[in-house]
Amino acid sequence: MQHEAVVLLSGGLDSATCLAIARRDGFIPTCLAVDYGQRHRCELDAAKRVAESLDAELRTIRVDLRAFGGSALTDDIDVPKGRDEQDISGGIPVTYVPARNLVFLSLAVAQAEVLGAQDLYIGVNQLDYSGYPDCRGEFIDSFRATSNLATKAGVEGKPLRINTPLIDLTKAEIVTLGTSLGVDYGLTVSCYDPTEDGLACGSCDACQLRRRGFEKANLKDPTRYA
Amino acid sequence: MQHEAVVLLSGGLDSATCLAIARRDGFIPTCLAVDYGQRHRCELDAAKRVAESLDAELRTIRVDLRAFGGSALTDDIDVPKGRDEQDISGGIPVTYVPARNLVFLSLAVAQAEVLGAQDLYIGVNQLDYSGYPDCRGEFIDSFRATSNLATKAGVEGKPLRINTPLIDLTKAEIVTLGTSLGVDYGLTVSCYDPTEDGLACGSCDACQLRRRGFEKANLKDPTRYA
Repeated sequence: MQHEAVVLLSGGLDSATCLAIARRDGFIPTCLAVDYGQRHRCELDAAKRVAESLDAELRTIRVDLRAFGGSALTDDIDVPKGRDEQDISGGIPVTYVPARNLVFLSLAVAQAEVLGAQDLYIGVNQLDYSGYPDCRGEFIDSFRATSNLATKAGVEGKPLRINTPLIDLTKAEIVTLGTSLGVDYGLTVSCYDPTEDGLACGSCDACQLRRRGFEKANLKDPTRYA
Repeated sequence: MQHEAVVLLSGGLDSATCLAIARRDGFIPTCLAVDYGQRHRCELDAAKRVAESLDAELRTIRVDLRAFGGSALTDDIDVPKGRDEQDISGGIPVTYVPARNLVFLSLAVAQAEVLGAQDLYIGVNQLDYSGYPDCRGEFIDSFRATSNLATKAGVEGKPLRINTPLIDLTKAEIVTLGTSLGVDYGLTVSCYDPTEDGLACGSCDACQLRRRGFEKANLKDPTRYA
């Protein structure tokens, strides 16, 4: 018997890989995309394309984090461009969205509980990442414990599992794995500041991490750059 | 110098008391109400009245938990009426909204981080409560640790405090305290199934807990019943 799993799907490279892994692991995935007022709204279209391509149901939930502001991704703050590798890994950048993964995981827990799913997938990774505190394993471990105290399922002895299959992989390892699982990365959007048509800027932190991942993996980069 | 605090305000009795306590504690409160698709939408109007009466700013954020369903408060499930005291405290009822306080607290953390506030207030209480797992102290303690791993403020050594001044009070103690702080409980709505005009049903769990609170405190119950 196949079990259900909730997969947080942003439309980017990592979450698309995560969805393919949930499929490989034998789950029936329900994808959850969050329309949080992000500037790079074309990632929501990418989430649709990715879910369709991997034959998964997609639900989109709206929560207006723009009402809070405080991030280059939700507010009128410039997205940093052309930072070198050391800068990218050297602290929490202005593209950090306050408490974003905390909010997203909480919504995924709500969805999982209603579906009766015990498994969540989230594509966080703490190696080639952008310095976000909510991508680290210690946050995920703590959240797992908290979610099981917060929910009926947790209290009744059906604890949630929060699967983070990418957490210790490099970007090169992620694209290699995803490619082997049939992910079409041409459907995904990672750029923080794409054009309206979804073309990538090529120089924000996310674009740089992504480009180097394909280079190091010796894979063709299917990203459409502006 | 006065500091800011984020107060989760539902428009009910507990959160109104919590707001008055945040004021008493010397904070400048920013109230956060969550429009989550609740059936009892008049509680959002109550939140406005309560914030105004205590001279506090109110922000309302929308997140459609109705898209998930699974609760009598967000789905087409009947609100239980006329349950006796033992039933009310005997398990998790259908009015439980999956992961609600987890989602609300996560949003409050996002708001606090953007404001630079280190204090949150939430009016959970684990004595005269409805059996919800996300009202217990052990959940709050765990969430506090998680939120400080999730956020820039936490990582940078300015941990959030999550204040739960009502957690070990009875309803009678809560209304006694709030009355002494000038809360006008006539402005609040606790009922899970009120009329469109905001009149309370008098027989759901929330109405019963509230009514007994006023009785035991020997205070006049200002609730407008249908």
